Amino acid sequence: MSDLKVTIKKLIEFRNERDWEQFHNSKDLALAISIEASELLELFLWKGNEDFRSEKLEDELADIFSFALLLAEKHNLDVSEIVEKKILKNSQKYPVSKAKGNAKKYNEF
Amino acid sequence: MSDLKVTIKKLIEFRNERDWEQFHNSKDLALAISIEASELLELFLWKGNEDFRSEKLEDELADIFSFALLLAEKHNLDVSEIVEKKILKNSQKYPVSKAKGNAKKYNEF
Amino acid sequence: MSDLKVTIKKLIEFRNERDWEQFHNSKDLALAISIEASELLELFLWKGNEDFRSEKLEDELADIFSFALLLAEKHNLDVSEIVEKKILKNSQKYPVSKAKGNAKKYNEF
Amino acid sequence: MSDLKVTIKKLIEFRNERDWEQFHNSKDLALAISIEASELLELFLWKGNEDFRSEKLEDELADIFSFALLLAEKHNLDVSEIVEKKILKNSQKYPVSKAKGNAKKYNEF
Repeated sequence: MSDLKVTIKKLIEFRNERDWEQFHNSKDLALAISIEASELLELFLWKGNEDFRSEKLEDELADIFSFALLLAEKHNLDVSEIVEKKILKNSQKYPVSKAKGNAKKYNEF
Repeated sequence: MSDLKVTIKKLIEFRNERDWEQFHNSKDLALAISIEASELLELFLWKGNEDFRSEKLEDELADIFSFALLLAEKHNLDVSEIVEKKILKNSQKYPVSKAKGNAKKYNEF
Repeated sequence: MSDLKVTIKKLIEFRNERDWEQFHNSKDLALAISIEASELLELFLWKGNEDFRSEKLEDELADIFSFALLLAEKHNLDVSEIVEKKILKNSQKYPVSKAKGNAKKYNEF
Repeated sequence: MSDLKVTIKKLIEFRNERDWEQFHNSKDLALAISIEASELLELFLWKGNEDFRSEKLEDELADIFSFALLLAEKHNLDVSEIVEKKILKNSQKYPVSKAKGNAKKYNEF
């Protein structure tokens, strides 16, 4: 089993031991991801781009990954598969010739 | 190389071909994760807990994972390692005896 | 002076006494609004639509209004003016004939 | 009637004409505020602190205020009242002597 599959298994064990599956509907998992993403953001509030405490960054990123992995697992989505599919999509939306060196959104080219 | 390592390599190639590393400071990557998490959330707005279009869910989750993987990689963090560390922490904050069957926050026990 | 103008004046006094204007650039004020909005959201996590503590709702809403009023004031925007302008815009995007009784986005009509 | 009361009345008329009150439960209004706050945030993604398009800022701020006003109205909360109450609370959490010139959170003093 790959590392990530083992990790997902541990997340599910943690959840099941606490009988929390009943709370983990898709909408609330999406809320949880968004709330954790906001806690990550808070590390940077009123601060420079690299001015944050790194043990906190690790903690908040872990929370985001945890809920995102649980939501993906709930819908039988494989992380590598969906990310690589999206890279292909984005290669067309953001061709190197137009996107290189600028941060414009594809609808602003 | 594990699946996820290959995926991360592809994300970095995609970024580097476009010369986008210059924009990917930690603060803006955190912003990007939060913005994508909010786009996921929007799928559920004014709707029931499981009432959403699944191809959109896949797309938005992929975006969240992409930026979260890039931020983790920037700080040499391994997804499995940080998530499993957090599971251990949370096992202490949420002991089965207190957390089972309820969704209270640890500071509300 | 209207109530709201008095309130904005008090927000600015509070900020200036603490010499915080230096931190209140537009980007970080937007971050602050988003972070406070997420704290409001957290009141509803894993819960029903009206199942929350009301003194917390008041608190989190106040934080959102505070930073939104500060950002508006920074750019000389009047709340009533911009909201009423937006109502007019939305009246065209969401004509009663198409929008009545459904929660579709205008681009899904 | 004050300007803001008139604006709130117009928001409610807009909502009622479309028969949208049925969707506006407290949880989804909180979601809407958070989603709009994230759209505001997106104006600043990969950009400097004051590098954004101002007509967009006005638009996104208007959306945040609209949903925040609707949620406040739903719970009979007066904007000026709750914001001024919060300023008093924050005056104690952030005394000038400790907070002046730094952006630390009160629990980090």
